[in-house]
Amino acid sequence: MMIGSRRTILGGLGAGLTLAGIGAQGARSAAQRKIGYAIVGLGSYATRQIMPNFKNCDHARLVALVSGTPAKLRQYGAEYGIPATHHYSYADYDRMRDNSDIDVVYVVLPNAMHAEYSIRAAQAGKHVMCEKPMAVSAAECEAMIAASRKAGKLLMIGYRSRFEPYNRLAIDLARRGHVGPTRIITSEHGFPIQPNQWRLDRPLSGGGSMMDIGIYSLNATRYLTGEEPVEVSAIESTDRADPRFKTVEDRISFLLRFPSGVEATCVSSYSSAHNAYRVVGTEGWIDMEPATSYSGQTMRIRKDGDVTPRTISEPAKNQFAGQLDHMAECIMNGSKPIVPGEEGLADLRVIEAIYRSAAEHRTISLAT
Amino acid sequence: MMIGSRRTILGGLGAGLTLAGIGAQGARSAAQRKIGYAIVGLGSYATRQIMPNFKNCDHARLVALVSGTPAKLRQYGAEYGIPATHHYSYADYDRMRDNSDIDVVYVVLPNAMHAEYSIRAAQAGKHVMCEKPMAVSAAECEAMIAASRKAGKLLMIGYRSRFEPYNRLAIDLARRGHVGPTRIITSEHGFPIQPNQWRLDRPLSGGGSMMDIGIYSLNATRYLTGEEPVEVSAIESTDRADPRFKTVEDRISFLLRFPSGVEATCVSSYSSAHNAYRVVGTEGWIDMEPATSYSGQTMRIRKDGDVTPRTISEPAKNQFAGQLDHMAECIMNGSKPIVPGEEGLADLRVIEAIYRSAAEHRTISLAT
Repeated sequence: MMIGSRRTILGGLGAGLTLAGIGAQGARSAAQRKIGYAIVGLGSYATRQIMPNFKNCDHARLVALVSGTPAKLRQYGAEYGIPATHHYSYADYDRMRDNSDIDVVYVVLPNAMHAEYSIRAAQAGKHVMCEKPMAVSAAECEAMIAASRKAGKLLMIGYRSRFEPYNRLAIDLARRGHVGPTRIITSEHGFPIQPNQWRLDRPLSGGGSMMDIGIYSLNATRYLTGEEPVEVSAIESTDRADPRFKTVEDRISFLLRFPSGVEATCVSSYSSAHNAYRVVGTEGWIDMEPATSYSGQTMRIRKDGDVTPRTISEPAKNQFAGQLDHMAECIMNGSKPIVPGEEGLADLRVIEAIYRSAAEHRTISLAT
Repeated sequence: MMIGSRRTILGGLGAGLTLAGIGAQGARSAAQRKIGYAIVGLGSYATRQIMPNFKNCDHARLVALVSGTPAKLRQYGAEYGIPATHHYSYADYDRMRDNSDIDVVYVVLPNAMHAEYSIRAAQAGKHVMCEKPMAVSAAECEAMIAASRKAGKLLMIGYRSRFEPYNRLAIDLARRGHVGPTRIITSEHGFPIQPNQWRLDRPLSGGGSMMDIGIYSLNATRYLTGEEPVEVSAIESTDRADPRFKTVEDRISFLLRFPSGVEATCVSSYSSAHNAYRVVGTEGWIDMEPATSYSGQTMRIRKDGDVTPRTISEPAKNQFAGQLDHMAECIMNGSKPIVPGEEGLADLRVIEAIYRSAAEHRTISLAT
């Protein structure tokens, strides 16, 4: 089935071959092997971060657009050379089934729409990439996993930091015990949110800062340890008089304990700016700030009492292209993404425990 | 009574005056106005940090030593010119009552001995300076406060950071809203502890990292906000197979919520190195690392998107001399120390709540 998808793409573009010279023909042949993505939801993240990065991909290409706004379809269709035959409204959504150029449907919608549109994409026979948070509940995540499994298609969650070179290095250093066995992780993410957006509307967002930005604090503790937390405690602080926070939380701080004994202290905030984590081992620390931004990651390492910057000198694919290519490679190789649906589900399970802890004023045990 | 103490000192040293020339006489006169300290417990903190700093004081001088080790009394007595008449064993302790050179008894003993020796010093008619943690329970703190009050003498706790110039600046900047109203504070303190010391022996220490180093994380959140926490949650992680942690905790992470809505995430560790805090407001942050070390405080401020170091150029008294002089000035002026017994009690109340939260797996409300 996966090989079939590739052949379909090759077939769909075959007509172009005869027009190309030898050099161009080689390039075109490579292009023909690329996996075709449909982008669902043409908001700023999709149009400013994801779509401009297909040009940096080795194995992924943009082939279709889904939006409820015809003007956006026209604008971005023209910009990226996507013909009207590959434009879809939400009413048309399930017709993507008939478009063999589309291998992957990448869902970049408000959180509460992730489950429905991911499941429908799987039912249309497509591989699914879905932005984080994967959904607004663990139950929805489970339904998404089941739908993709039933369709025999892959499901990957858009955890871009896992494809960001400094984060990959941090994971490697932390898990290898470069500064000794990890004992403490601190992880903080937040930004002062502007009013009047879907993120502040619970029916669309499913929650406040925790769903949107605090998930980076949580996910980092999980990928830096490679473990699942066994104990969670959280305290929320929200000024309900602030018009931004009528339906969602502002700040929620949380503690996690992992099976190896690692403790993590985490911040999630919609009223202050944070983007950092630090892995503290018995012999020093690995510090990242910014840690999970779109670019500009900065790593410092303290070891033997000295603090030194750590830079990656070799050129590396950026996280957006890396993520798009990873899914393409998994499809081509028949392998499972490193951030499959189960990864999104794991975060949602902890997020639900964080909310429960804050609401019930107690520590929540997470049985594994 | 306070003026009486000063006159006693002046009287006690009066004989020296006639020996001095005019310049020396001026210096000697100033010295005569200095408040006399007895140091109780000649461990490394007393001998390496406190005692060498009397020479930097304007109003405090070292006049007596208390130790159970005669060799230490001889060694440090010789080094600081303290005659044998001003050496005390613990059996002699209450005889300090009769030594009018001693105005302040500075208790630098293991935590579990703070209450007894502070109370006995007050009962001997002395002002008391006591190291932090003030005691091993809030109840002991209350008894100490009552004893000093009954004696009509001052009680101050050795919160040296309150006299450290960068911490004073951080307090001022944070409370003035230099980076906007504070929303989040992160505060981490810890060090990998060496085995075989009283800090690891609960009967002497009263607890593990929280009592010894985590108290800096807690105290910083209180002095940076000027508020008392209303909600506390904590998770402990201790490897009881580690011979260091047979009776005391290793790591304990805790969350605090303050009345203004500020949330603090704090680390206390005996197995990893931490010395930092960050005050995050709506418009930026104030970062200190190291924050509460003996020296070398480094402040960076993020505001308007730029991160810049902030240095204090004018020479300032170091925190140890500042602390010793503050108590002396309070005695001279009849004013209350900025870190009185009530400050130590406030920390112990929160520490007890932190321990209770970790033990009972629930958030603790602190009624005010």
